[in-house]
Amino acid sequence: MRSSLLVIAAALLVGAAPAQKLLTPGDIVTAAPASAWKEIPADDLLVIDLAGGGQVVIQLAPTFAPVHVANIRALARSGYWNGATVYRVQDNYVAQWGLNESDKPWPAGVNPKPPAEYVRPLRGLSIKSLGNPDPYAPAAGFADGWPVGYSPKAGWATLAHCYGSVGVGRDLAPDTGSGGELYAVIGHGPRQLDRNIALVGRVVEGIDRFSTLPRGPAPLGMYADKKQDVPIASIRLASDMPVAGRPAYQVMDTASPSFARYLKLRANRHDAFYEVPAGGVDLCNVVVPVRKLNLLP
Amino acid sequence: MRSSLLVIAAALLVGAAPAQKLLTPGDIVTAAPASAWKEIPADDLLVIDLAGGGQVVIQLAPTFAPVHVANIRALARSGYWNGATVYRVQDNYVAQWGLNESDKPWPAGVNPKPPAEYVRPLRGLSIKSLGNPDPYAPAAGFADGWPVGYSPKAGWATLAHCYGSVGVGRDLAPDTGSGGELYAVIGHGPRQLDRNIALVGRVVEGIDRFSTLPRGPAPLGMYADKKQDVPIASIRLASDMPVAGRPAYQVMDTASPSFARYLKLRANRHDAFYEVPAGGVDLCNVVVPVRKLNLLP
Repeated sequence: MRSSLLVIAAALLVGAAPAQKLLTPGDIVTAAPASAWKEIPADDLLVIDLAGGGQVVIQLAPTFAPVHVANIRALARSGYWNGATVYRVQDNYVAQWGLNESDKPWPAGVNPKPPAEYVRPLRGLSIKSLGNPDPYAPAAGFADGWPVGYSPKAGWATLAHCYGSVGVGRDLAPDTGSGGELYAVIGHGPRQLDRNIALVGRVVEGIDRFSTLPRGPAPLGMYADKKQDVPIASIRLASDMPVAGRPAYQVMDTASPSFARYLKLRANRHDAFYEVPAGGVDLCNVVVPVRKLNLLP
Repeated sequence: MRSSLLVIAAALLVGAAPAQKLLTPGDIVTAAPASAWKEIPADDLLVIDLAGGGQVVIQLAPTFAPVHVANIRALARSGYWNGATVYRVQDNYVAQWGLNESDKPWPAGVNPKPPAEYVRPLRGLSIKSLGNPDPYAPAAGFADGWPVGYSPKAGWATLAHCYGSVGVGRDLAPDTGSGGELYAVIGHGPRQLDRNIALVGRVVEGIDRFSTLPRGPAPLGMYADKKQDVPIASIRLASDMPVAGRPAYQVMDTASPSFARYLKLRANRHDAFYEVPAGGVDLCNVVVPVRKLNLLP
């Protein structure tokens, strides 16, 4: 017999707000005022169209990795990624794309040896604390709409590797990767990578286009045969697309009262499905709310 | 240009043991003696064959949910699941299967109203502590080969919702679900569900057969049209299969010295790729090692 399983537990994830007495995190998102939202600049949106159909949109994080993000913008604008493919998909880990083994020269404006933007100064960030201990950093919370680990004592902050996080492939240190090869997390947040590799953003729409791809049979989830590679039709900045057709989104302001309420409920689910609120939550289980805007008249 | 990105970071996940000075968690697994492994009884393996090809194998956890596991064995043996499908796949959450909305009567031997096996007594379990705080329970660690949250003071232990965990669909409490509808986690561990729903096992092989399925377009990831449902050819216990053709596995003994070394390295990656060991790790990022046995002569 069927169980409508998790209907309420998961209501948040589909934005539903069922009629019930006790609020869910999704209810908070639905009721958040306009002042709780910030629009993502079109220059911070990287739009990937797969040749077989489907679009993946990434929000870039210049606040955390300005040199790598500048590289990615230059690569997109120059058409560097013409012919790019998704060539690696490892279950419960990452999907990775780019030109793979190419010797194509870097276009103008690309810094081939960026600094290691694994952490940035804590100073200048407005932090909302997660409220419970984090195994990967002295403290954890949210800054500028992003999940971060940080050290109040040492004064650094780092983007956290959560589901959907986007980072820059690299070889062994001191190489930091230039931005030509990118990966997105498609499994449990591999936070051991925090502070060891440059994160540059997160997927805000279409992660399922990566997460449903066949896993690669070769070591590390590489596709064994180039025929398996998933061709990418284009990688563009939204700011280079016509206004009428470009995707646009708002992210909840993590310094807003709405986010504080949302965070509190994520750690203390008390709606009808739940019998025992956890009283805590891990950083990657607090997905910062993002909503799509409709720019068409 | 290509980056061989994460090659070493991920070596564990493919069982490789590259030649290098500093040990990886994967090296510990490769070098573990026979005494560090325990075979999974064939009666604890639920084998799902998809009609379109592909096999998913689940290890059941009678130590934690004996009544639900007894139900699942009875359902498998009676052929209750003939005609079952995967009818729900929600990105970064769960894939769910069963008969969906069926009124098929329960076969003999099934308890239609099992007790809420969300926690069990801590007593009787040999616990290996995770070694750092857990947001979802007073303490966390490993018992009998499973990731668990527990309370030394209150004396309970609960299986944790990690990638690959398998649980029992239910409606609102006090319903606990009978076992006819099951789900597997295909995203970041939704540990807010711990102690709120019965976990009965984990996928030990073939999770990608679920994680790569198209996400359902209806609310909660339900497939909107029955034509989208993914048909299941059979759900059997390995103990009901011919010995020569049944899958078999060993799980690392979480009370063994090898597991202690593995856990320590998971929290302190120091091999060539890593510059900064985290010094901690979250429960779901310590995947308990499982290896397949070849029973053919």
